[in-house]
Amino acid sequence: MKELPYDTNDPIMALATPWGESALAIIRASGENAVNLTASAFSRPEVLKEAGHATMVHGYIQDPERIDEVMVSVFRAPHGYTGEEGVEITCHGSLPGIQKIMEALRGRGFRDAAPGEFTLRAFLNGKMDLTRAEAVREIIAAKSRHAQTLALNRLSGALRQRIDELKGRLKTLLAAVEVQLDYPEDEMEAAPVLSFEKLHEIGSGLQQLLGTYRTGRLYQEGVQVALSGATNAGKSSLFNLFLREDRSIVSGIHGTTRDYIESWITLRGVPVRLFDTAGLRDPEHPVEAEGIKRSGRVIESAALVVYMVDATIGLSGAERADFEKKRADPRYLFVWNKTDLASGPVPEGWIPVSAEKGSGFEQLEEEIGHRILGGEGAGGDLLIDSTRQQRLLERALASLKEAEGAVESGVPLDFVAADLKDAMDALGEITGEVTSADILNQIFGDFCVGK
Amino acid sequence: MKELPYDTNDPIMALATPWGESALAIIRASGENAVNLTASAFSRPEVLKEAGHATMVHGYIQDPERIDEVMVSVFRAPHGYTGEEGVEITCHGSLPGIQKIMEALRGRGFRDAAPGEFTLRAFLNGKMDLTRAEAVREIIAAKSRHAQTLALNRLSGALRQRIDELKGRLKTLLAAVEVQLDYPEDEMEAAPVLSFEKLHEIGSGLQQLLGTYRTGRLYQEGVQVALSGATNAGKSSLFNLFLREDRSIVSGIHGTTRDYIESWITLRGVPVRLFDTAGLRDPEHPVEAEGIKRSGRVIESAALVVYMVDATIGLSGAERADFEKKRADPRYLFVWNKTDLASGPVPEGWIPVSAEKGSGFEQLEEEIGHRILGGEGAGGDLLIDSTRQQRLLERALASLKEAEGAVESGVPLDFVAADLKDAMDALGEITGEVTSADILNQIFGDFCVGK
Repeated sequence: MKELPYDTNDPIMALATPWGESALAIIRASGENAVNLTASAFSRPEVLKEAGHATMVHGYIQDPERIDEVMVSVFRAPHGYTGEEGVEITCHGSLPGIQKIMEALRGRGFRDAAPGEFTLRAFLNGKMDLTRAEAVREIIAAKSRHAQTLALNRLSGALRQRIDELKGRLKTLLAAVEVQLDYPEDEMEAAPVLSFEKLHEIGSGLQQLLGTYRTGRLYQEGVQVALSGATNAGKSSLFNLFLREDRSIVSGIHGTTRDYIESWITLRGVPVRLFDTAGLRDPEHPVEAEGIKRSGRVIESAALVVYMVDATIGLSGAERADFEKKRADPRYLFVWNKTDLASGPVPEGWIPVSAEKGSGFEQLEEEIGHRILGGEGAGGDLLIDSTRQQRLLERALASLKEAEGAVESGVPLDFVAADLKDAMDALGEITGEVTSADILNQIFGDFCVGK
Repeated sequence: MKELPYDTNDPIMALATPWGESALAIIRASGENAVNLTASAFSRPEVLKEAGHATMVHGYIQDPERIDEVMVSVFRAPHGYTGEEGVEITCHGSLPGIQKIMEALRGRGFRDAAPGEFTLRAFLNGKMDLTRAEAVREIIAAKSRHAQTLALNRLSGALRQRIDELKGRLKTLLAAVEVQLDYPEDEMEAAPVLSFEKLHEIGSGLQQLLGTYRTGRLYQEGVQVALSGATNAGKSSLFNLFLREDRSIVSGIHGTTRDYIESWITLRGVPVRLFDTAGLRDPEHPVEAEGIKRSGRVIESAALVVYMVDATIGLSGAERADFEKKRADPRYLFVWNKTDLASGPVPEGWIPVSAEKGSGFEQLEEEIGHRILGGEGAGGDLLIDSTRQQRLLERALASLKEAEGAVESGVPLDFVAADLKDAMDALGEITGEVTSADILNQIFGDFCVGK
């Protein structure tokens, strides 16, 4: 792996917990001699040096004066996450303390780990394939419970198994083709025949997995939904209703009412970045004008726009025009709010809601879920989220189609074999059996430091 | 401890690392049966149940479906931080994953820990006295390396030793007084005499420790310094110079140039919250006016104001008036900036600096350090920071003075003995030998959750 931008044998270290004042923090280190190097900055070096795998030693990090009271967890090769010798130093979540410990480790020969370098080493040491390595990143970045479950499923090896199984079937087919190639011309009648049906079955398997990409990505990345409408339409009430009904808010509320407020919520398992935008009205103040401009950009980039109107006032001319213009746009949903206060009929194409009372909310949620997920539903347990995996599955599928075409048009079997091999290679790249420094750089560069 | 607002025997748990996406996170749990309760939501319950102190078990948290792949560290009573049975679950730093694990633990009988409850239990179980417990909070909140070192020193028991030593000497004195009290009236000549000198020595010891409070607090809490002056005076250059010269910035830069920017830096070991305020000029825009108003409040509350002038322009009338008004104010320091571009003489009372070139910076830093720390210097290794400790030391000292006065004015020795006992009680409260639920609530209520 000479092409990687760093030596993969160096002892490395990084803060593995978020940077902030807290009860505890973990500084993680890995590489040859990691335990002895750490011991040289530890109050009980001999005890640490002799500690077995998966045991902890209490003491002080010192260099030479005491820096912090810590527990050092020891991992012995080939066990542990990276497969190398390693330690995890659990220290106080003190910012200057963390800095001092990391400096002490640098002084003992550790260098700062690159993003994802611990997981890269786990891959290089055969502890996990690339689908599991990517799942590590996905599990950390998951923004809803369902997304986290899907990522854990991939981390547990479900995707790898599926890929391996498809590859195994390809291998059997390829073997059959190669046997056929070996048969002398005059005995061809007796040769085993390439099963067209099996080729097709494998193609369906690839297609099925590929078909999960859109939904998988939706669960992982989430989707942007904007509430829009006049200042008095009740957007904030609906925004708060969404937050209240959500049982798994992952982050707080950001922004100011002057431009827009946003918060992550979960809707049918999909992480939704919900925006309460500035009211559409004539700006009286330059700051407000800027807020409305920024809200406009949010609405433009939203996957779904919930357009609200105050039922007690009804449609203004502008709103009527907006409705006529956008009713065919699948990005738009029209909400007739404050039905608890209004007596008139609900116009066609509008969903009646009382954000204040909560009535009509379930129907609205249903409709939003339907628009976001389409007819796809939950999509089972095994979904792919990685664009890299998607591209490779497409490549494998294309090669398979080539092979099918070649068989049909009677092209020499050598070509069919080459196509099948290419499909296998593409699957091998997904799991990392076939790989390159470039691919690894790309995958692990997206990781956070410390993982 | 019936008066505490919660049961101190419940199994408790909390996230001990900051809330955020990261490589790793720690969920900490403590209390009777903590290992078995955790095992009931673990993929390898039997292995976990049998794990010894300071060992780790790899597996999945599940409830019943898998939630995350984790390492569980086991602590057996009376070892470990709290002195109770406990575990630390090291999981992925995934926000929904952390939520799900905590819910699973709640379902198994753990309740959410109150702030500082792990350390409270460590105190109740005799694992640490109150000076060390307070040092735990202080080490986490430390904003400079020196503050962290001072807190670690207290955590290591240095303050406790010093208090115990003073108390021991008081006890010897009290014993002497009590012997004297026991002597019959007619044998008083032969009775041991209360050593006035020793009483004085103990008083000096208390006084010395009390004298470290201002400096100790300065190191721990830090001090607010504001850069002020006209928009063209070069405040931002000086602000950036401070940041560049600082080797231990603990947090990033906050705020916008419209109102003020702030950042923590360290100056002579003291954490300094440095503000770059909005330029003092006629506001052309309402937003700017608001910024200048807010900057004014920052300058008002600053412990030190660095007032800057552009040497190439010289003093305006307003600046001259400001200087005359504030030159006697010890909060103000006057900086003659851009000396590299100006040729004129530096007026008396101004420190010549070129923020651009860095010249004069050391002298400025020296002067700021002098103003902040006064003649106090670094103040040795043992400083107190806690207001509670300061108040109790003052009470002990006052009782000692009472005793001195009583001896001098020939008041019966019973009263002297009562004063000495009160001084001892005050010292006992510092370490927690004498305590109450109220005191504990007050101390641990200031902690972060998870510690």
